[in-house]
Amino acid sequence: MPNDYPPADLDLVSGAESDSDSLRALFRPRSVAVVGASRDPGKIGGRIFRYVRDRGYPGPVYPISAGTEPVQGAEPLPSLDALPSPADLVFVVVPARHVPEAVSAAADRGCGACVVVSSGFAESGPEGKVLQEEIEAIARATDLRILGPNCMGIMNPRIGLYGTFMSALDEVPLPPGNVALVSQSGAFATHAALLLRNRGLDLSLWCTTGNECDVDVADGIACAARDEDTEVIVAYLEGCRDLEKLDASLAVAAETRKPIVVLKAGRSAPGAEAARAHTAAEAGDDARFDGVFRRSGAYRARSIEELVDVTRACAANAFPNGRRVGLMSISGGVGVIMADDAVRAGLDVAPMPAAVESELKALLPFAAARNPIDCTAQAFNDWSLFDRFLDATVRRGGYDSIVLFLATVGANPAVMDPLMDRLEAARAARPDRVMALSLIIDDERRGRLERAGFLVFEDPSRAVNTVAALAHIGDHLFRR
Amino acid sequence: MPNDYPPADLDLVSGAESDSDSLRALFRPRSVAVVGASRDPGKIGGRIFRYVRDRGYPGPVYPISAGTEPVQGAEPLPSLDALPSPADLVFVVVPARHVPEAVSAAADRGCGACVVVSSGFAESGPEGKVLQEEIEAIARATDLRILGPNCMGIMNPRIGLYGTFMSALDEVPLPPGNVALVSQSGAFATHAALLLRNRGLDLSLWCTTGNECDVDVADGIACAARDEDTEVIVAYLEGCRDLEKLDASLAVAAETRKPIVVLKAGRSAPGAEAARAHTAAEAGDDARFDGVFRRSGAYRARSIEELVDVTRACAANAFPNGRRVGLMSISGGVGVIMADDAVRAGLDVAPMPAAVESELKALLPFAAARNPIDCTAQAFNDWSLFDRFLDATVRRGGYDSIVLFLATVGANPAVMDPLMDRLEAARAARPDRVMALSLIIDDERRGRLERAGFLVFEDPSRAVNTVAALAHIGDHLFRR
Repeated sequence: MPNDYPPADLDLVSGAESDSDSLRALFRPRSVAVVGASRDPGKIGGRIFRYVRDRGYPGPVYPISAGTEPVQGAEPLPSLDALPSPADLVFVVVPARHVPEAVSAAADRGCGACVVVSSGFAESGPEGKVLQEEIEAIARATDLRILGPNCMGIMNPRIGLYGTFMSALDEVPLPPGNVALVSQSGAFATHAALLLRNRGLDLSLWCTTGNECDVDVADGIACAARDEDTEVIVAYLEGCRDLEKLDASLAVAAETRKPIVVLKAGRSAPGAEAARAHTAAEAGDDARFDGVFRRSGAYRARSIEELVDVTRACAANAFPNGRRVGLMSISGGVGVIMADDAVRAGLDVAPMPAAVESELKALLPFAAARNPIDCTAQAFNDWSLFDRFLDATVRRGGYDSIVLFLATVGANPAVMDPLMDRLEAARAARPDRVMALSLIIDDERRGRLERAGFLVFEDPSRAVNTVAALAHIGDHLFRR
Repeated sequence: MPNDYPPADLDLVSGAESDSDSLRALFRPRSVAVVGASRDPGKIGGRIFRYVRDRGYPGPVYPISAGTEPVQGAEPLPSLDALPSPADLVFVVVPARHVPEAVSAAADRGCGACVVVSSGFAESGPEGKVLQEEIEAIARATDLRILGPNCMGIMNPRIGLYGTFMSALDEVPLPPGNVALVSQSGAFATHAALLLRNRGLDLSLWCTTGNECDVDVADGIACAARDEDTEVIVAYLEGCRDLEKLDASLAVAAETRKPIVVLKAGRSAPGAEAARAHTAAEAGDDARFDGVFRRSGAYRARSIEELVDVTRACAANAFPNGRRVGLMSISGGVGVIMADDAVRAGLDVAPMPAAVESELKALLPFAAARNPIDCTAQAFNDWSLFDRFLDATVRRGGYDSIVLFLATVGANPAVMDPLMDRLEAARAARPDRVMALSLIIDDERRGRLERAGFLVFEDPSRAVNTVAALAHIGDHLFRR
């Protein structure tokens, strides 16, 4: 599916600060070559060429391919030597055994960076390991930077650079946005990109590092931290050869006050073994990763779903000032569940001030008014009750964040319509509070609540966990 | 929203075995009275009367209300004494201080059961506690059974009995189904019922127990276990005054081979305190509950979302024969995540037989073929590769269950269409295996995959966790 946003302009490609950055050629190339560009637009080498050429990238894109038949309408060049000038960025899509030769040619030609998508390197056994060492040596000995091997490429949607073979691009446009996604795993990055897109979040950068013979997740995080348009950084990693470098990159992100949400896999023995087979990564000592993430305030998600929830909440760019959470519901039962979740996630379910509690109990004796607060469904028979309970929770309890469980009320317009107005007013009156709602609701009303500044969830445990993640992140980024 | 299924027939109300059951009058009443039936169809007492009368319940429904003005078109009776014969089931919707009198009148009149929805009992303080003790004493001294107080009522959709004030009923029909939902919390039960409905599951019974002065969650579970139409039992509890009784009810369910999915809240200190304020429940020693659930094979969910996932999977009525899980993906990264999840959830990520592993590695050297299995996106360029990998995972690995991660492939019809046929064939060839898919997919294709017998999830961790829950349940129900 072609993008419907305007083509990028080459000025974007050469930003001021970017020229000193050795990764500029990778993220903001002035020209691109595809070694192994295929005539078949469905094959990997055909797709990368097609996506880079046809999606608004403003620089020249050269197919390097044997033979004289046009490559998807373009005249092929026989080798990198035939380029009019060295390409900034070279995609390498040839069988593993030919990769060292192609990478070496790119270095000799003075190109800036290679993206090696081919598999069959250290992840596949001793022979592949030798091949990987060869290209690693080239990266070390020259100015050429290498992304991969065994990766899915790179995207910088702002400059129309879709340097990947992700087939979902044929169906789903990925317009520019503010989330940087840096991942060892390509398919993880693909899946996460689509999940984020489905939830209204788009990408500032997308970078898959695969076997990391040179450029690694830490490099990607550092780039994203320095990138003006990036507001949230999402990272997936299986291993890390240089924890100190990772630590330093996370510190850069923390200094620039960019939230980082990370998923580090390979905790279990079969997980660690799978990581070795996948990107030749050593999963390492899980506790050491925990320590590195904790120091920088990076939030470690336990699943892709949680990672998307937290990223989405971070993109709203509101963080609680502390860990005190007010839990309000129309169902004591779910209040109990939310209290359990909040405690487990490290939030403080602080009691309502005693005077307020007494006042609420006097209004509605069978309500719960301590925290969790339960106004019961009675509050929808008498709106003044609801207003008093909501005001107490939002304003008088002194809570840094509020989670409000409304069960199935969203399915009942007679109740939901007057409730929407009240929620919007409460939200507007307290812009400094983080407010999450949990309810079953249609997309239109959900959108309206989100635009008003609520985080909206169906599941109350996910609402509480996400607020806890925001408190954790905010605690590190804004109050140290 | 009125139901569009035909009205029930009174034969259903008086089943053969049911007459000996002291809870027959509660779950299958031959007649109903509503004490406090309101002329206002939107008020609690107006809604219960309306829902019971207007949704297909075939027996007589009497409004008991002061005054002579019609109650929603029906002639009110001044008291239970004015009934032509004792009502089987009496809903009590009057302020707490009048409840003992109403319950006592029901007992004197020879009614079978009362549902007390009113709040203001033990959950609200010492005065309410005294009121609750009064009605509890009536239940002990007479044949009258009491559900509540402080509950949201009861539903038996097969006989059109919608005895609740859940306002969502105005919008959402709740037709009969095969899941029994027994909950201390009414709003939890409402929320869960709608979530299940949204995922295609309907209710055989729905029972909220509130403060449990007489009928408790254990009674509801025992009824559901003996109920012919119930295939899965879902329970929510905050406390339990008689753990031995709960244990016995769970054992009945286990004997009848009905899976039980339970959420027990109140683990944390504020959660336990909230439970006290909500249903006057003592959350008790959490480890003792764990022990009771473990003994019967009840699966303890940690969130409503997980409870719904597992219930839905149980309703498909296929359980793995063991804990060996085959994890296959087109992305090594997500394979690593799934392996971590599987180990954490107690599944056995057993390696592929060595001969099969070698064979697969020979086919595709950069694939992972041990477990997790990663056929890489290459398999979609050459379907024979995919077929071999899938066959190995489904058939040759000897796995009891299979989880297949397909990332964003669902968004690409050119790949998804040939894939659908292959998946359906694999599913049909191995009906004895539990197979879960994780992918981003549209509703239509999702429906087709579900009809073919796959469990379908967007998030891979939820897929793995649900399969682990099925293995846990199956292990207890079918192999002890």
